[in-house]
Amino acid sequence: MNLRVVLVEPMYEGNIGSIARAMKNFGFHELVLVNPCHIEDFGLAMASHAKDILERSRSVSCLEEAIEEANLVIGTTGKRLGNEQKHLRLHLRVPCLSPHELAEKLQGRDGVVALLLGREDIGLTSQELAGCDLVTSIPTNKFYPIMNISHAAAILLYELSQISGGETHMASRESLLRLLDRSKSLLEEVKYPEHKVDFTLIMFKRILGRAELTEREARTLLGIIKSIRWRIKDLATEFEE
Amino acid sequence: MNLRVVLVEPMYEGNIGSIARAMKNFGFHELVLVNPCHIEDFGLAMASHAKDILERSRSVSCLEEAIEEANLVIGTTGKRLGNEQKHLRLHLRVPCLSPHELAEKLQGRDGVVALLLGREDIGLTSQELAGCDLVTSIPTNKFYPIMNISHAAAILLYELSQISGGETHMASRESLLRLLDRSKSLLEEVKYPEHKVDFTLIMFKRILGRAELTEREARTLLGIIKSIRWRIKDLATEFEE
Repeated sequence: MNLRVVLVEPMYEGNIGSIARAMKNFGFHELVLVNPCHIEDFGLAMASHAKDILERSRSVSCLEEAIEEANLVIGTTGKRLGNEQKHLRLHLRVPCLSPHELAEKLQGRDGVVALLLGREDIGLTSQELAGCDLVTSIPTNKFYPIMNISHAAAILLYELSQISGGETHMASRESLLRLLDRSKSLLEEVKYPEHKVDFTLIMFKRILGRAELTEREARTLLGIIKSIRWRIKDLATEFEE
Repeated sequence: MNLRVVLVEPMYEGNIGSIARAMKNFGFHELVLVNPCHIEDFGLAMASHAKDILERSRSVSCLEEAIEEANLVIGTTGKRLGNEQKHLRLHLRVPCLSPHELAEKLQGRDGVVALLLGREDIGLTSQELAGCDLVTSIPTNKFYPIMNISHAAAILLYELSQISGGETHMASRESLLRLLDRSKSLLEEVKYPEHKVDFTLIMFKRILGRAELTEREARTLLGIIKSIRWRIKDLATEFEE
């Protein structure tokens, strides 16, 4: 398993440096920064002997670019969603894996896993989380749940470093996105209530994320959806005739 | 279980503040500082919403004072001991528990556990580690094993926060120290090779640490040692007569 750490709009160079250090402590090297702040002396100092990770990091201008070619995208959140966001909570956070559960889930998998860490103040947006295949949250005390981002990163990397890779190659991002796109078309074609489509697709994404499809499984599912849509089209044509 | 975090001669206020924050994130509150550096604005800023933990922390001038009334003292180390220290390694580091193993070991225990974190540059000294009942080390990458101290603390606190306390009350520090003292006397009385005594006592300490004695068990062992020493004394007296 190749882990890619993606920091989404990090605001403080010290945190970027600290996270680079924690990455090297646990044997990870690929760092991608989405619209980062400038990294100067303090960031380099916090990286300590992991300056090479900062030097080899990539800066990109949008999240899509950062997760290109990732087989699995993992979002992180420390947010406690309020009641008014209950509908979001259902889809985004439940089930939200603990770092330990996440590590167990990835045991024996092969592929590129992108771990997304959000901004220091607001974290990842709901939309960004909705785009993730899996969401993880560190169980913290309810009286002060907001962690320093580099501490959160250290704990996640510590858990993920204990995974031994394997030969089960995860489905490509391309196949998963195609699967969601075809599912959306299918829902439209069967006149599924329009206002439910978006959340149903997020739920579907979560289920696929947890199921950690192999490429073969993803293609088989695509084939099934294709058959269903053809049959519907045939029947619709016959009916019209 | 009541966890007491003990920082031994911390050098940077930012780390003390960061550790206070991580403590509060995981629901721990007792912080003791042995000969700390001054804590000023930066330390308070890093503590963020955990300034109360810094304010209620105790500063002491020696380690002994910091671990008073602790039932169990846990040392932390990131050191890779070289070959020339093989004899130390045997006693100090083997078996060295991972944070996860440590958490499993403490499951269901009641009492005060002191978690010792050493200086940013040299950590805990061999002598300080020798004084601990258990030693834990975070498994890191061999190419860069030295972690930021607040990251190490966050990972340990994360693991320890997942313990549910219980009713098995651990032996008091006093009983454990008395047990070691009486064992030492016994070794001397049976003319155990003098140069082996110290290491044997450290090994004995480690075994007792891992065994997590209850108070009742500690007292029973004390009683046994007492009986043995009396019998030896009797025989020696008879022999002399």
